[in-house]
Amino acid sequence: MKGLPSIENLSLSFARLPGIGSKTAERMAYAVLRMEEEDRISFAKNIIAVGERISKCPVCGLYMEGEECPSCGDPERDSSFLCVVTEGRDAETIEKAGGYHGLYHVLGGLISPSKGLLPEGLGIEHLLQRVKEGNFEEVILALSPTIEGETTSLYVSKLLAPTGVKVSRLGYGLPMGGSIDYADGLTIAKAFEGRRKI
Amino acid sequence: MKGLPSIENLSLSFARLPGIGSKTAERMAYAVLRMEEEDRISFAKNIIAVGERISKCPVCGLYMEGEECPSCGDPERDSSFLCVVTEGRDAETIEKAGGYHGLYHVLGGLISPSKGLLPEGLGIEHLLQRVKEGNFEEVILALSPTIEGETTSLYVSKLLAPTGVKVSRLGYGLPMGGSIDYADGLTIAKAFEGRRKI
Repeated sequence: MKGLPSIENLSLSFARLPGIGSKTAERMAYAVLRMEEEDRISFAKNIIAVGERISKCPVCGLYMEGEECPSCGDPERDSSFLCVVTEGRDAETIEKAGGYHGLYHVLGGLISPSKGLLPEGLGIEHLLQRVKEGNFEEVILALSPTIEGETTSLYVSKLLAPTGVKVSRLGYGLPMGGSIDYADGLTIAKAFEGRRKI
Repeated sequence: MKGLPSIENLSLSFARLPGIGSKTAERMAYAVLRMEEEDRISFAKNIIAVGERISKCPVCGLYMEGEECPSCGDPERDSSFLCVVTEGRDAETIEKAGGYHGLYHVLGGLISPSKGLLPEGLGIEHLLQRVKEGNFEEVILALSPTIEGETTSLYVSKLLAPTGVKVSRLGYGLPMGGSIDYADGLTIAKAFEGRRKI
C-alpha cells in the first residue's frame, strides 16, 4: 500500500523542528489533516507571517514586529543598563521574569572554536562600538553558565575593560524551588562561592 | 516589552497539535522564524496540501491521495480478508509491519458512551452492509485492547454473526522484545489465556 505523499512532505517539514523525530512528525501531520480547513489555513498563514513581519533590530539585534524595536524604541526603558544575551529568546525570558528594565544586546551565538564560532563571527565588535558610543553605566552579561558562555563572558569583559564601563555577569547558585539533593557539584560549589550574609 | 504577535499566533497554531504545550509551541514558532524562507514557504504549502489533496475512500474510509484508494484500488490485494481498524493511521501501522495483504475498513472511532460515541455514529452499519454485499472469508478486528476497543469488537462481532463470515480479533499477549518484568498483570493473564503449544 502506497503512503500519502502529502503526509510524507508535511512530516518532513515538521521533522525540521528541533526535538521532533519522524514518528512525532508523522503524528503531527495527521493531526493537521484532521483539523478544520479554517485552522489549517490560518496555521499556514501564521508560518508565512513570522517570516514576513518579523525582522531584527539593527541596533540591539532583538526580533521586532513592525517599525519599532520593543526595547530600543521604548523611551521608558532605562538606557543606562545594557544586558547582553545570546539570542532574542533569552531577552524574552528575562522580560517574563520582570525586574530588569534596561536595554538589550543580542550576540547571536557564543564563542565555540570546536563549532567554528569565533569571536569575529558574533556581534561582539558591534557591542563594543555600541558601548563606546553610548552612555551605559553597567553592562550585564546574561550568558548561559556553560564553557561557551563563560568563555564568551570573559572575552567580552576583557574587550569592554578599556571603555571603563562596569561589567557584571548574572549570579550562579541553587535554582529557586529546587532541592539541594538534585543540585550538581559544580552548582553547589558556585553557590558556596556566591554565598551572601543574611 | 511587548511580545511578537506573529510568534504568538503561530504558537497558538502549534499548540493545537496533540501533546504540544505552550512552551514547546513557542520554541517551535521561533524555530520557524529561524528557518530559511524557502523552507518556511514549503512548510506552509505542505499544510495546505494535506487538506486539499487527501480525501477519504468512500468504500473503506482510508485516506487517499488522488482518485484511487491505496487499498481498494489495488487489484493485487486479497479481497477475501477484511481488517477493521479504528482509524486510517492504524492501517498504515499494520502495513508497515507487513504480513497482511487484505482489504481494510475504517470505523472512525470506538464505542464509548461516556464520550458520547454510540454505535450509530460509527461506520458500523456501513461495515455490515459491505460484509453482506461482499464475499469475505474472514473479518479481522484490529482494535486496541482497551475497554472501548473490546466493547466495539464484541458489538461488531455480534452484528456480523448472522452473515456467517468468520470474525476474529488480533492476539493479545507479551509484546515482542519486551521483558516479562515490565508487563502488567492483565497482559500476563491474556498471554496465559492465549498460550500456544510449542
